Amino acid sequence: MSYPLLDTINSIRDLKALPEKQLPALCEELRAFLIEHVSKTGGHLASSLGAVELIVAMHYVFDSPTDKLVFDVGHQAYVHKILTGRKDAFDTLRKEGGLSGFPKHSESVHDAFDTGHASTAISAALGLARAMRANGESGMAVALVGDGAMTGGLSYEALDDAGSDRIPLLIILNDNQMSISKNVGGIKDSLTTMRTNRAYNAFKRSLTGVLETSRFGNFLSRHMEQFKNRLKRFFAPNLPFEEFGILYLGPIDGHDVRKIIKYLRRCRALKKPMMLHAVTTKGKGYPFAVENPEKFHGIAPFEVMTGKVSPERQKTCSEVFGDTMLSLAKKNEKLVAITAAMPSGTGLTEFAKTYPDRFYDVGIAEAHAVTMAAGLARGGMRPVVAVYSSFLQRAYDSLLHDVCLQNLPVVIALDRAGLVGADGETHQGVYDPGFLSTMPNLVVYAPSTQREMVAMLEMAVSRKEPAVVRYPRGSLPDLPMKNKVFFGEWEIVEPLQKTVIVTHGTLLPLAKWIAKKNGVGLVNARFLQPLDEEMIAYFRENGIRILVMEENTVSLGEKIALAANPCRVRSIALPTEPIPHASVDRQRERYGFTEESVTKILKELSEEA
Amino acid sequence: MSYPLLDTINSIRDLKALPEKQLPALCEELRAFLIEHVSKTGGHLASSLGAVELIVAMHYVFDSPTDKLVFDVGHQAYVHKILTGRKDAFDTLRKEGGLSGFPKHSESVHDAFDTGHASTAISAALGLARAMRANGESGMAVALVGDGAMTGGLSYEALDDAGSDRIPLLIILNDNQMSISKNVGGIKDSLTTMRTNRAYNAFKRSLTGVLETSRFGNFLSRHMEQFKNRLKRFFAPNLPFEEFGILYLGPIDGHDVRKIIKYLRRCRALKKPMMLHAVTTKGKGYPFAVENPEKFHGIAPFEVMTGKVSPERQKTCSEVFGDTMLSLAKKNEKLVAITAAMPSGTGLTEFAKTYPDRFYDVGIAEAHAVTMAAGLARGGMRPVVAVYSSFLQRAYDSLLHDVCLQNLPVVIALDRAGLVGADGETHQGVYDPGFLSTMPNLVVYAPSTQREMVAMLEMAVSRKEPAVVRYPRGSLPDLPMKNKVFFGEWEIVEPLQKTVIVTHGTLLPLAKWIAKKNGVGLVNARFLQPLDEEMIAYFRENGIRILVMEENTVSLGEKIALAANPCRVRSIALPTEPIPHASVDRQRERYGFTEESVTKILKELSEEA
Repeated sequence: MSYPLLDTINSIRDLKALPEKQLPALCEELRAFLIEHVSKTGGHLASSLGAVELIVAMHYVFDSPTDKLVFDVGHQAYVHKILTGRKDAFDTLRKEGGLSGFPKHSESVHDAFDTGHASTAISAALGLARAMRANGESGMAVALVGDGAMTGGLSYEALDDAGSDRIPLLIILNDNQMSISKNVGGIKDSLTTMRTNRAYNAFKRSLTGVLETSRFGNFLSRHMEQFKNRLKRFFAPNLPFEEFGILYLGPIDGHDVRKIIKYLRRCRALKKPMMLHAVTTKGKGYPFAVENPEKFHGIAPFEVMTGKVSPERQKTCSEVFGDTMLSLAKKNEKLVAITAAMPSGTGLTEFAKTYPDRFYDVGIAEAHAVTMAAGLARGGMRPVVAVYSSFLQRAYDSLLHDVCLQNLPVVIALDRAGLVGADGETHQGVYDPGFLSTMPNLVVYAPSTQREMVAMLEMAVSRKEPAVVRYPRGSLPDLPMKNKVFFGEWEIVEPLQKTVIVTHGTLLPLAKWIAKKNGVGLVNARFLQPLDEEMIAYFRENGIRILVMEENTVSLGEKIALAANPCRVRSIALPTEPIPHASVDRQRERYGFTEESVTKILKELSEEA
Repeated sequence: MSYPLLDTINSIRDLKALPEKQLPALCEELRAFLIEHVSKTGGHLASSLGAVELIVAMHYVFDSPTDKLVFDVGHQAYVHKILTGRKDAFDTLRKEGGLSGFPKHSESVHDAFDTGHASTAISAALGLARAMRANGESGMAVALVGDGAMTGGLSYEALDDAGSDRIPLLIILNDNQMSISKNVGGIKDSLTTMRTNRAYNAFKRSLTGVLETSRFGNFLSRHMEQFKNRLKRFFAPNLPFEEFGILYLGPIDGHDVRKIIKYLRRCRALKKPMMLHAVTTKGKGYPFAVENPEKFHGIAPFEVMTGKVSPERQKTCSEVFGDTMLSLAKKNEKLVAITAAMPSGTGLTEFAKTYPDRFYDVGIAEAHAVTMAAGLARGGMRPVVAVYSSFLQRAYDSLLHDVCLQNLPVVIALDRAGLVGADGETHQGVYDPGFLSTMPNLVVYAPSTQREMVAMLEMAVSRKEPAVVRYPRGSLPDLPMKNKVFFGEWEIVEPLQKTVIVTHGTLLPLAKWIAKKNGVGLVNARFLQPLDEEMIAYFRENGIRILVMEENTVSLGEKIALAANPCRVRSIALPTEPIPHASVDRQRERYGFTEESVTKILKELSEEA
């Protein structure tokens, strides 16, 4: 591919030197560049294709890093990276040591704030704006936010606060009518009304005519702003943003780069909280992505000409979960499934089609998903909330306060638990065993094979307490189950010896290899809580030496060290430090989950005096 | 006091038998009853006084427990408890074994859902409504929600979801223009506009006239609902709720019990999501509470005739914090303070007056408070977020994802850490050491005296990483500081012996008494993270026996057990089980923080073979 314009652009300064009329052509080149490169590296293609013009216009009008550009979630920021001097590194995207898939201040001063989870940008930009005001700096904070992120309560809290402060702050709403999947909820309907309100737009045009010619117009223009707002509401009743004291502008075509520039210049001159509503098409410019934006939201390397990804070899855990839910729903009519904007990611697409009345997609609103599930459980239903580990972080209090304190039988199907690879720091599912260990009444299941996972899901929905079943991104082995799952019992995989490895989930195969080779025992800690007190008493009474391996920040290792005290215990776990993007295999290697490194610690432990 | 009507009411059945015209008199009796009893027990008086008519009307119209009444936060539910058979137990309010200050399903079937934290009621009621629909039950879910709780993102997530579902659900907005303190934010302004819109109300009356008499009226009535909504918006532009697809009714006088009943009956007949907006006065009926609703929000026992509480003996930690912030702000012009609707509770009232430009009250929106603080920190400011331990639970992901992963210097001043007494389960500050231990880069300070607390706050704002300084409800001892605070170092309080107690914060005095009496060492773990590795190496190398005492769910005990392995370690900590209301002293006793119980474990530890 050749990129005559893009080749000349190595910094934002180069971009600003380009005549405005060349920008549409540049945008086309950026799209081609994105498709060419992401097809090789994999990544978040559809969002980035949809935001090309918005980001080009943002950099054309604003001066980063004096102005602070914050990208909500950050999926859409690839063009921002290309324009701010990182074009030549683009083939390293999401690879170890290469560009992060998300904005990272440590990567570039132009990444004003690190993102990864949805709905943080308005809060962060408001903080940046307040800091600039306090420091007497002249820059403006600009948040680019997708309509999906507007379903998150954090966005609302930020709007409520921003609207009460007359601070310059620009929110650009990138409205592609999707979150990751099709968008849901009342706000979505409001946005639809706003997008399609021809009556209002026609009226606005004729009003402008009146204003220019009549005496009535002179009168009106004095009361214009208030009156226009009233009229706007009369014709376009669904304008939630101005309720918060935020000036609303739009909707405009989010692919008309020159129009966006015109609006951004106007916004830059105004000194108040504003929202510019731009309508875009997710996946714009790549037909396969437009047709199937959910598939191309985050995608593995694919063939440009066909849009095809090389097929997965094994059933993913999300698929196993989806299938299990279908069969459980047949047997138990009280079973309902809940997702926070991830029906496909969590494997619930079929369930949603088969049982539309027993399926709730609540939008990107994890806290509500969990508290609402608590209500369902109190009402006698059996809710299962499917959510990624890193996103359950947003529902910590809902799980503690609404589910666990009340001992309500809500089941959390915790996907993407453990290392996640290319998404990096913000998406690592490595904190849940730690934060879940504070929860009253909660049982945490950790399957290590597909069949264990099915058995545990069945057990969790048949019991009467809150439960989390945690399983990794990708697959678990499809192996026969030697020992049935009994509640609260760990499994002896290799006979207990003077030294025993205790581990769970994805680390079982490595641990088994090492245990066999070194003639030590192996325990599959199928339950992270409650602990198997009987097994621990055996350890304690027999002075067993224990090596605990966990693919998360230390939790089980500490618990066993205390419960089996004074047994000798060593722990291999992840540090709490941020874990950057790389392949999962490389991440495991880096943190000591290799035959060599584990064997060394095992030997030390066995030989300790 | 005599209560001629109230004395006849021992159940909701008795209430329903009363003629409607006697209800205003009953409400007056309920107020007198509340004032008489809460003046003796202490409790959340002002909210309960404001909601008397609303709750009487709710029970008069709806049939609990077939209909599900959910009380947001639950402060206002005292009258609900009185009417549902718990009147005679009212003197046991918030005492051990007595009535909880919050709704508790385990206490009464009429408490449909347990609450304590703000903004959960709409989510929970929606879940209950969906369960009833799925079960083919006829009841209706009703959520009573204060306007303060509407600033929380969770309320918004729930409205967004409810509005997209045509499910019968009634939200009663108890609008007293306060959260705990004066309410803030854009939503507050909207509510004000709605309350005061006389133009709209006058127009609505004349419109009704037109409708009844003219042919135009006949035409209109066919398009009535849509047209009325448009007109409503034209005259009362700030109606955020209908944006969500929620039918809005009101505002009505929340102290006119017969009018409320009329409206509730209407709502009961409609089968859709609705919001009834009732305007009330917090503290209504008790002049001292109306004048000073913040003081009477949650109050200790007081003298009815004067409203006076017996004065506290010692400076509270919140006061120490407030004073320290004032002196730090003088020295450091980058320092800003942030609260989520708790300026007085956290001790920031003076700060807000002295430095209005460096103070942000963001409403009941803890997640936003923390993410916004991250933005401020990125912009070069030194934000300090003052928040209760149990409410930081709601900002878990903001702290992890926005502050700690980015290593931004945000300081959390964590008030009400440890056991809190009468507020019970939902307000215990006992989970933070556990959930904070998953956070990258975070330092956790645990002062045990007022001076340590001041020194640690000074240290935290002078350093460059995220920090939490955690201190209890009430006071810390005002003692001289023997050893200066050095970063990351624990303090040797009693010389190290073969057996050592390690503890922190409020448990220091008890531990000191026991250590002296038993001739064992005592270490003040001033930092919960990072651990003092040098001290732990000393323990390990010298085979020290360690008793760890913590007034929270086990955290430091486990960490030391692993880090000092194979030292003998015993832990006295709180279980993860819910800890009900009682005095703090009784709670400590119950969980083994007594001389007798600690000494026994200490002896066992010292004598173990």
